[in-house]
Amino acid sequence: MQQDTRLRRVRQRMRQDRIDWLLVTRPSDVSYVTGFLGQDSWAIITSRAVLLLTDSRYTEQAQKECPKVQIVERMGTLANTVIHLVKKHRIGRLGIEQSIVLSDWLVIQKEIGRRLRPVDQPLADIRAVKGQLEIRYIQKAGRIARTALQRAIAQLRPGITELAFAGLLELEIRKAGGSVAFETIVAFGANGSRPHHQPTSRALRQNDTVLVDFGAKFMGYRSDITRTFVIGRPSDLFLKAYDVVRNAQEAAIAAIRPGVSLRQVDAIPRQVIQESGLPVYGHGSGHGIGLDIHEQPFLKPDAQGRLRLGQVLTIEPAIYLPGRLGVRLEDDVLVTRQGCRILTRQEPHCYDPSSYQEPPNG
Amino acid sequence: MQQDTRLRRVRQRMRQDRIDWLLVTRPSDVSYVTGFLGQDSWAIITSRAVLLLTDSRYTEQAQKECPKVQIVERMGTLANTVIHLVKKHRIGRLGIEQSIVLSDWLVIQKEIGRRLRPVDQPLADIRAVKGQLEIRYIQKAGRIARTALQRAIAQLRPGITELAFAGLLELEIRKAGGSVAFETIVAFGANGSRPHHQPTSRALRQNDTVLVDFGAKFMGYRSDITRTFVIGRPSDLFLKAYDVVRNAQEAAIAAIRPGVSLRQVDAIPRQVIQESGLPVYGHGSGHGIGLDIHEQPFLKPDAQGRLRLGQVLTIEPAIYLPGRLGVRLEDDVLVTRQGCRILTRQEPHCYDPSSYQEPPNG
Repeated sequence: MQQDTRLRRVRQRMRQDRIDWLLVTRPSDVSYVTGFLGQDSWAIITSRAVLLLTDSRYTEQAQKECPKVQIVERMGTLANTVIHLVKKHRIGRLGIEQSIVLSDWLVIQKEIGRRLRPVDQPLADIRAVKGQLEIRYIQKAGRIARTALQRAIAQLRPGITELAFAGLLELEIRKAGGSVAFETIVAFGANGSRPHHQPTSRALRQNDTVLVDFGAKFMGYRSDITRTFVIGRPSDLFLKAYDVVRNAQEAAIAAIRPGVSLRQVDAIPRQVIQESGLPVYGHGSGHGIGLDIHEQPFLKPDAQGRLRLGQVLTIEPAIYLPGRLGVRLEDDVLVTRQGCRILTRQEPHCYDPSSYQEPPNG
Repeated sequence: MQQDTRLRRVRQRMRQDRIDWLLVTRPSDVSYVTGFLGQDSWAIITSRAVLLLTDSRYTEQAQKECPKVQIVERMGTLANTVIHLVKKHRIGRLGIEQSIVLSDWLVIQKEIGRRLRPVDQPLADIRAVKGQLEIRYIQKAGRIARTALQRAIAQLRPGITELAFAGLLELEIRKAGGSVAFETIVAFGANGSRPHHQPTSRALRQNDTVLVDFGAKFMGYRSDITRTFVIGRPSDLFLKAYDVVRNAQEAAIAAIRPGVSLRQVDAIPRQVIQESGLPVYGHGSGHGIGLDIHEQPFLKPDAQGRLRLGQVLTIEPAIYLPGRLGVRLEDDVLVTRQGCRILTRQEPHCYDPSSYQEPPNG
């Protein structure tokens, strides 16, 4: 979605909510409305302009990244700058994103309390549907991640630690032109049963399973991929679990199309695993990705709403057997008119690293 | 500081504030009071127990990392779990960290509004003074970072991109047993004039300056180091700027001791740079580090308060000449009885990579 279209939709929402200015505090929302990719900055959307409130560390970067935006170097804290601007321009109603932290809210409320309207994720629905450029960035982030994994796997040998393999993968992400989308998870053997395992100095042994959950960031947009495979000879238990998870993921992907309920897509892979007699995972079946690594839509048992054309989300069923095994498979899909397009693979899953290939993306 | 001492101080503060339970929502505070190093979790401190509110992804990790803590697998959202617990145990006054986001606050307020007391950074003062174990972790994080830099510099050649060098450095951090403390800054040539530059595909040329601002994380604790040097022959301008920044940093370090005002330590390096006729940086002169990469104390022109024994902070003066040059030097120091101990170097600064050495730490 072009910057102009985004802003038109945001302003439409502002008129519905009867607010004059919208204060944007969530970092990814700030990037979305300004193009700025730095940190510690807020944006204000008025009926005619977009202001970026930042500090001297970022002025040069901001001038480069967002030429259409009015850059305000803050005086004191961001909260005080907002108070100053609202008073100066005699703004009647200031919408504030509810992602603001309470301490900043209390400071602003004390000074201009009656003008404030907390707004709940005003950009989430708009952001959930991606434009052409955003899809290209996510796809590129996916390609970078897959290239990096392929090159890292080529260097994977028994003896390497989880930490070193995570580092190797992240180096390959950089070399391929991206940055790291989130803390890389590398789990060998039974460590895979902790869904958010942090890499340790555990060394890879022959016949270990390797679970790797990672992603690349490109122009602010993220990919999120999980692969599980075995170095050596897989156990019968692994083969069974892998097969069930793969079928679960395929069943979910097959169900994706505009209009299907989030709850239904969440339930399908759980059903497949439940029928196998293996334990069902406790996390969601997937989540939207974009400027944030977790954003709308969320596939959860209590999710509201339906999939929409142009949304990009992960599908990530898993089986966890604490102390024994973890298998998770995760790909990123784009909701299309016909169903969906998988952005992060063409090939079927494969568990044997000797045949593990990440072919060029379609 | 041992877990018991920490909790005793927190509970002392709770009694002063007349609150029965304290809801801890800031991730680093959650780690501080529980030992848990995962994400998306809150803690509650009662007069007798510590509860960790988490979800199934983290249960196994939590049992391992915090055996003394009562683990509560959340029902629905974290906010709803808190409401449920407060009602069930008929708690009179619930203190809530003001770092909670407004949306969660509004949900909790709607249900149990009259029992709530927002508390402003209740742990910040306690956390600012480090215990022996914390100092050891930060020092170890510093050693990992320096080892990594030394090994990465040995592989630095003209032609390498900022992104690839950042990746290389992060790989070496992992290999040395740490993880990455924050987004690594690598800036070649004029890119160094953007204080928070994000690495690009700009390739290193002979006689370029290299500015690298990075850190390692070990057991949750972080180091934060900046080095600037030249690959090849430094310009006269670089040599002058480097000399001024080094003198500025040394002057600040020489002034550190318990009881000196934060404002004074902030002003000293600025004074040195101002007297040189070169432009003074717009950011603070330093900040505390620990479980967060930025925490108390903050060295800023408007800072309140004084340095205390046992605090650990960075000293990072700089000179930025937009479009031309950036020089920043940053080390981590521990405030001691006599003055301070530099945790991240023994050697004098050096700008020539052919003589660049990070010797073992004292």
